[in-house]
Amino acid sequence: MGAFYYATLYAGVVQRTSFEGASCSVAQCLEVVGEWWSLLIVRDAFLGVTRFDDFQARLGISRNILTRRLNHLVDSGILRRVPYQDHPPRSEYRLTSKGRDLWHVVAAIRQWGDRWAAPGGPPVETRHTACGHVVTAVPSCSHCGEPLDARSVTAIRGPGGTAADFDRTRLAPAGSRSR
Amino acid sequence: MGAFYYATLYAGVVQRTSFEGASCSVAQCLEVVGEWWSLLIVRDAFLGVTRFDDFQARLGISRNILTRRLNHLVDSGILRRVPYQDHPPRSEYRLTSKGRDLWHVVAAIRQWGDRWAAPGGPPVETRHTACGHVVTAVPSCSHCGEPLDARSVTAIRGPGGTAADFDRTRLAPAGSRSR
Repeated sequence: MGAFYYATLYAGVVQRTSFEGASCSVAQCLEVVGEWWSLLIVRDAFLGVTRFDDFQARLGISRNILTRRLNHLVDSGILRRVPYQDHPPRSEYRLTSKGRDLWHVVAAIRQWGDRWAAPGGPPVETRHTACGHVVTAVPSCSHCGEPLDARSVTAIRGPGGTAADFDRTRLAPAGSRSR
Repeated sequence: MGAFYYATLYAGVVQRTSFEGASCSVAQCLEVVGEWWSLLIVRDAFLGVTRFDDFQARLGISRNILTRRLNHLVDSGILRRVPYQDHPPRSEYRLTSKGRDLWHVVAAIRQWGDRWAAPGGPPVETRHTACGHVVTAVPSCSHCGEPLDARSVTAIRGPGGTAADFDRTRLAPAGSRSR
């Protein structure tokens, strides 16, 4: 961001946890893009930023940390390196299909921020090429097309789930709740 | 999650940055829920978890860190405390409307994880109450209803944006790019 005002905090020893082994898909996605920088890098990639120096200038991030996050995104299959110069060798970073599939995540996050934390209005809006309008992404039912929200759906156990995934939730079998 | 296997890393001195002053709505949302634990707490709240001990058992998180994250979510208006017992005083945590509005974010994150990181199939699925089917949330155009993805839209400057927001992107005015 241009007017990227931020305060850098050295938080001392910070406890970090890896969710690599967790069966939850939310945790799996956060494992890859759960660090702030990673998702802001992906956001910028959607805006067409591809080069190290451009990411660095926009994010106001140390080269050190940016290198680490870019490597992680490449290793995770979100970005790929594409050489654009031989002498000296230079590559740019482009979203893979796995990375482009994060568009829905970034759009949902942006829209929440637009609604709840953008008193001056949305800084960035989205134009739908096909219809030409400035639009938002409405989460819609893949079967009937109606808009979905927290109150119109129920979570159920999927093929990759276990009963333990619902332990202590309102979906737990009767008698297994802690209250 | 039940089979919540994780490795705790002490990463030493970790650089943390606050995006509080950034105009980007993505950064603003991450400012509130950008810590892994926060979004997993919100995920569990959508599954009907309300009590401290239940969050703690499911997340395998220290009481210390959980207290801090819950306080932050309450301060940010995502959760509210609702007393359920007088002697001794006890409260549970419930999503506010601002918190429930994160459903789209959690759904988008979960679906990405289901697609790219759930070899055994989705652990949790979503049933749409109105139509009765197991469905996914399709990001659809608020104007014409067609599905949206990275390639069907263009980012444009919104009322809260500045030219600097697009510095070094493909949307920057001619001549202002760094390449």
